[in-house]
Amino acid sequence: MEGNTGNKREETSSEKDLLILKPEEIEKESFRRIDRELKEKGITLQGPEADVIRRVIHTTADFDYADTMRFSEGAVEHLQELLKQGTLIVTDTNMAKAGINKKKLERTGGEVRCFMAEPDVALEAKERGVTRAHVSMERAAALGRPVIFAVGNAPTALLSILELTGKNGFRPAFIIGVPVGFVNVEYAKERILETDLPYIVNAGRKGGSNVAAAIVNAVLGQIGTE
Amino acid sequence: MEGNTGNKREETSSEKDLLILKPEEIEKESFRRIDRELKEKGITLQGPEADVIRRVIHTTADFDYADTMRFSEGAVEHLQELLKQGTLIVTDTNMAKAGINKKKLERTGGEVRCFMAEPDVALEAKERGVTRAHVSMERAAALGRPVIFAVGNAPTALLSILELTGKNGFRPAFIIGVPVGFVNVEYAKERILETDLPYIVNAGRKGGSNVAAAIVNAVLGQIGTE
Repeated sequence: MEGNTGNKREETSSEKDLLILKPEEIEKESFRRIDRELKEKGITLQGPEADVIRRVIHTTADFDYADTMRFSEGAVEHLQELLKQGTLIVTDTNMAKAGINKKKLERTGGEVRCFMAEPDVALEAKERGVTRAHVSMERAAALGRPVIFAVGNAPTALLSILELTGKNGFRPAFIIGVPVGFVNVEYAKERILETDLPYIVNAGRKGGSNVAAAIVNAVLGQIGTE
Repeated sequence: MEGNTGNKREETSSEKDLLILKPEEIEKESFRRIDRELKEKGITLQGPEADVIRRVIHTTADFDYADTMRFSEGAVEHLQELLKQGTLIVTDTNMAKAGINKKKLERTGGEVRCFMAEPDVALEAKERGVTRAHVSMERAAALGRPVIFAVGNAPTALLSILELTGKNGFRPAFIIGVPVGFVNVEYAKERILETDLPYIVNAGRKGGSNVAAAIVNAVLGQIGTE
């Protein structure tokens, strides 16, 4: 289990001095280091997307996201508008739900829900022989109101959203498609990229509930500062 | 924002056939692919640690963890025993708390708590000019019972645990130290590695609430199958 212990360039004997920094100063310094490392890698991020990608890198310490995140045209501005309007966010894990900044969400009158852990969802999924993710997305679609889907775990959630789109007039208001994994994940993300739906997707296998939450929080932060 | 869209080797036109797989079959197939890719990379994981590392890779799709995870001697066996005894788990985020498998935890009579979001914690932290993480760890230490600390976010939480160790007879039962970030994170993890406390740490900048939860779930899974 030996090997790389990570980038040491920033870790000096004076590192301890930073321990007195306030959380907001720590965050500023973190983004300064992210930007410097992006520059060192020759990566230039622009537009409102840059903010989202930087937040995801901050959440994962993984610079791969600078190469793999995909945005539909005007995606971030569109998500800003939806969040300003307090549009419901539906996640595919309680972890993503827990990770979304509730204080920022309250300011917009927004709400986040997750149907996955509801007992009758598990029951219905078992009875019908479908995934809990599928039943959860069905329930979100059946609400008859605009929904921002934040999918950080289940590729089947993304495929269910596509399957439901167009039925009974359902159309997702926005799709954050960042499931993580080794089976069906790339396939499901590619299906989203083929649509004309507004999306933020991380191509490839990486993603997660933490990434889904970070994307929402980044855009909430953008409208919070206006 | 162009670039690598991830490993395509596993993504074939027959990929869609996998969509009929049951979740447990998807997981099996995922671990098969992880093991094959580890083999391709010339990485051999052994012992109960292997199980934990594979679960973290499954959660992040990031093979860096195969090189950077660190375990104190007998760490996994020790954590198994603590979890069997239903030892309290204290996290530094509600996200990590949400990510821990409650069904598996119930079997052991275990419990997970997070003090971070409690309003009076924020108030006390503000009044004292310390971090919420510090106040949260103090409260966990003051419980006067064994605590497994699962830290996926705040390096200051790790440093606070060390600062509290030895005071009023407090000693952490176990430390899962996987905060993520660019400031203080590597420093705080290295401090844990210097101790004789039982730990699982991911060296370097990477980690997260999802990783902390994955480590707990991996070990809960080990004792669940006994």
